[in-house]
Amino acid sequence: MLPDHLLLFRDQPQEILIGGSVQLIDVMGDDQAIVNAARVSYGTGTKRVSEDRHLIRYLMRHQHTTPFEMCELVLRVRVPMDTWRQWVRHRTASINEYSTRYSEAIDARLTTDPTAWRLQAKDNKQGSDGFVSEYPEGQLLSEEEARFQDQAVHLYQERLKFGVAREQARKDLPLSTFTEAYWKCDLKNLLGFLKLRMDEHAQYEIRQYANAIAEILKVWVPWTWEAFEDYTQRAVTFSRLELEALFQVLDASSTQKALEVSGLKGRELAEFRKKLTTQ
Amino acid sequence: MLPDHLLLFRDQPQEILIGGSVQLIDVMGDDQAIVNAARVSYGTGTKRVSEDRHLIRYLMRHQHTTPFEMCELVLRVRVPMDTWRQWVRHRTASINEYSTRYSEAIDARLTTDPTAWRLQAKDNKQGSDGFVSEYPEGQLLSEEEARFQDQAVHLYQERLKFGVAREQARKDLPLSTFTEAYWKCDLKNLLGFLKLRMDEHAQYEIRQYANAIAEILKVWVPWTWEAFEDYTQRAVTFSRLELEALFQVLDASSTQKALEVSGLKGRELAEFRKKLTTQ
Amino acid sequence: MLPDHLLLFRDQPQEILIGGSVQLIDVMGDDQAIVNAARVSYGTGTKRVSEDRHLIRYLMRHQHTTPFEMCELVLRVRVPMDTWRQWVRHRTASINEYSTRYSEAIDARLTTDPTAWRLQAKDNKQGSDGFVSEYPEGQLLSEEEARFQDQAVHLYQERLKFGVAREQARKDLPLSTFTEAYWKCDLKNLLGFLKLRMDEHAQYEIRQYANAIAEILKVWVPWTWEAFEDYTQRAVTFSRLELEALFQVLDASSTQKALEVSGLKGRELAEFRKKLTTQ
Amino acid sequence: MLPDHLLLFRDQPQEILIGGSVQLIDVMGDDQAIVNAARVSYGTGTKRVSEDRHLIRYLMRHQHTTPFEMCELVLRVRVPMDTWRQWVRHRTASINEYSTRYSEAIDARLTTDPTAWRLQAKDNKQGSDGFVSEYPEGQLLSEEEARFQDQAVHLYQERLKFGVAREQARKDLPLSTFTEAYWKCDLKNLLGFLKLRMDEHAQYEIRQYANAIAEILKVWVPWTWEAFEDYTQRAVTFSRLELEALFQVLDASSTQKALEVSGLKGRELAEFRKKLTTQ
Repeated sequence: MLPDHLLLFRDQPQEILIGGSVQLIDVMGDDQAIVNAARVSYGTGTKRVSEDRHLIRYLMRHQHTTPFEMCELVLRVRVPMDTWRQWVRHRTASINEYSTRYSEAIDARLTTDPTAWRLQAKDNKQGSDGFVSEYPEGQLLSEEEARFQDQAVHLYQERLKFGVAREQARKDLPLSTFTEAYWKCDLKNLLGFLKLRMDEHAQYEIRQYANAIAEILKVWVPWTWEAFEDYTQRAVTFSRLELEALFQVLDASSTQKALEVSGLKGRELAEFRKKLTTQ
Repeated sequence: MLPDHLLLFRDQPQEILIGGSVQLIDVMGDDQAIVNAARVSYGTGTKRVSEDRHLIRYLMRHQHTTPFEMCELVLRVRVPMDTWRQWVRHRTASINEYSTRYSEAIDARLTTDPTAWRLQAKDNKQGSDGFVSEYPEGQLLSEEEARFQDQAVHLYQERLKFGVAREQARKDLPLSTFTEAYWKCDLKNLLGFLKLRMDEHAQYEIRQYANAIAEILKVWVPWTWEAFEDYTQRAVTFSRLELEALFQVLDASSTQKALEVSGLKGRELAEFRKKLTTQ
Repeated sequence: MLPDHLLLFRDQPQEILIGGSVQLIDVMGDDQAIVNAARVSYGTGTKRVSEDRHLIRYLMRHQHTTPFEMCELVLRVRVPMDTWRQWVRHRTASINEYSTRYSEAIDARLTTDPTAWRLQAKDNKQGSDGFVSEYPEGQLLSEEEARFQDQAVHLYQERLKFGVAREQARKDLPLSTFTEAYWKCDLKNLLGFLKLRMDEHAQYEIRQYANAIAEILKVWVPWTWEAFEDYTQRAVTFSRLELEALFQVLDASSTQKALEVSGLKGRELAEFRKKLTTQ
Repeated sequence: MLPDHLLLFRDQPQEILIGGSVQLIDVMGDDQAIVNAARVSYGTGTKRVSEDRHLIRYLMRHQHTTPFEMCELVLRVRVPMDTWRQWVRHRTASINEYSTRYSEAIDARLTTDPTAWRLQAKDNKQGSDGFVSEYPEGQLLSEEEARFQDQAVHLYQERLKFGVAREQARKDLPLSTFTEAYWKCDLKNLLGFLKLRMDEHAQYEIRQYANAIAEILKVWVPWTWEAFEDYTQRAVTFSRLELEALFQVLDASSTQKALEVSGLKGRELAEFRKKLTTQ
């Protein structure tokens, strides 16, 4: 059952895009459950591991990810099929999706505002960059979209009227058609989902959903979220070649200064020193 | 690399529906590899396990499924997105799908012959039963389908001409649009896929793909296929209540006769006896 | 958080074997959560699906297993490493195990009562059947066991005294040494675990753990448990050849009688009829 | 079937520790198969993606990991149970292990040379550092080990002589007892295994196995291996706090110099610039 401070996410589902939503159904565990599970591994030796928030940061930093699997989240989401096609590629999750074989397709589609048509990015074959002018292009595109979606509804309804089976009548539904699903994911895999889908290279639509889920995590598992930001989302990985170049411009004194200004202490400072001096 | 007797499935991809296909790319293992893996478990004790075909039948009958995981199959498939939505729900598989963010959508859609519009089943909310009359209904439905699909192409091309990003232009593609993918699955999970998707309750479209994959298995792993048919696909499970009813009408002599006519021997006969006498 | 009626399983861990235990830590979901998830799939068409218990039975009977994934269970278990070796082969679960690299091994081992030494089964290479006589054989075996386990403790402690790293000192710990773990599994995969490990062919030791987990399920998800017993655990699958033999001894009148005495109604009766008449 | 240049790994299994081994049984795919799978995603847009080695490096750098799942490797390994306990925690793999229920346990145990007893690390609760003196401590420890292992063999054999079931007789086998298994893993998950188990924090024993598997990869998928070393194994991740410290000591001119000495070009240079200038 949902703890009180999360009820808002159930009772007032977050609205996403035009017509989509993210509603919290249930959670299992929290920051404390992660700590409890991790301490099973450490047994009696655990006394020297300092307090709980620190332990979560340690686990995240060293990618000891199994304790994060102890938490689960269940959402009810309403998503255009186009976005859902990306979503379901995350295989380590449980799904119960609305069946358009069993029931009539949901009568709602994602529409696009005249100001919201994105231009193909020049330097990124799979991205977008900037917007189509609102007048007259954007206006025209939105009008064509509305007309086409009306025809799609008409076609689907006509087929049903002729007695065509729902499983076949749906064959030409546009990808903009909304679907609904229960989606359950453990926290470890959820963080993997968010890393990928909150990234600036993720498509705009799924990013809105990822951002909404992140809002839940900030309240549900605040220590985990903070550690995720520090050690994963806002961390940067340098390749072997990049490191070699960095080491050529970092002399002993600048390395020493970096250690000092970092404000890090204890084991984390030692780890930083090692990163800066191992070549 | 593909053994010679499977090359045909690579060089002449099977055609599915109107415009779909199943092409074999690679396999790993065969019936013998399953036997070899199973014999690791049995160690020196294996001498009393009789010959190879029998061992595969034993594994299948007792759902000792891990040896079947030692075989893998890679396909290149061309599938309407509507069918692909069902396909990807099988999570234990590896997928590389054509990206409509990166490249223009494949310019082909599944069309329906005037004789192929299926009626909604009366007694099965998620199935179909019989066909719409060809004239004039089927004819009309196919003409409407063609007109709508033309409009969908036009809409997509218009968006691209206006410079709309591919990731957004695709948002209203009809589910009938073909996609392509490499799909890799181990034999254990592949049999699970086939059990579900060759079943009479599976949707017609995905059943055609499942049947095509079965054709490959019959040549690739003939002993496994035979065992799968005998112990899984054509087997029937009776519930506790059904068994109790059966036992009320099976007296000692009919039970004895069933054992005799079964033609089973040795351990398999003993297993059958046990099923008929444990209540 | 645990609902009240499950607190007993947390506050009074079940004792298993001599020194083992199963303690409930947390659950997510219940019978109602399964129903809620399933109804998402059925959408508005769901009105004709009758009440909740019936829906769960329907899902179980037809192996619509995804709704059962919506429930999760977390246990803290204390298990001999020998049994744990079997347990961890269930891959779809989350584990945090006591680390004997980080902390000293748990100082407890599974011991065997003089009356509890099992004889090798004659007809089953991987099972046991009957018991060794208590005197003098069982007595002797238990004494030897105690002596050997004392030596194992001594050896381990000696290594630690010499400063040997824990990760190496543990190399000769007997498999009877207890380990502890948090173990989390969703209900679908948990039922798969129980089907396999409550079976009479499962090893005695792990069967005791499986039975203890079953006690929790009977209270936590009673409808699911009842359906699991009727359609899985106490169901029997007949192979193609066995079915052919059955059909030879079941004439039209005995088939009719079986249907009558079954007490089944509606869709379930129709399914039984189909099983008995399809050849 | 194994290509010729890999036959050596099958015909001359690598020897690991004293008595362990890694033998290659089969592979599926190679660098080219990864490229082929990736190009399915890019479709016709792929022309601008340059040549194959570069594409593999791109996939690795950006963690586009699905194409690496298209390759599989099957090993036959002989491993002490203690090490196997760590190994099987990698859940995304297929295993057929020697059954000590079905057959007598393998009569071989990992022994330790008098010079090879490692000391507990002072600063790392789960590691080792340096060695116990050979005389007289190491000598003594090895003698005690030999004596204990002899007793373990004696105990096991005695139980079997008394007719105790193999499944129970094994309960006190020391963890040093060897087991054998077929182990199959796809290349993506194999790289995850190697990243963790070749690391200096991994236990010595499993590191020897990981190193042996790496030798196979260097011959089997040389481009993938090279990219793995450059972008994963020898890459370093800096946390948000570490980055902030670095940016304080890297002024514009040292940043510029790092870019110049890096020798990177095109997109990879642009990525490096972005890492050094985004704060």
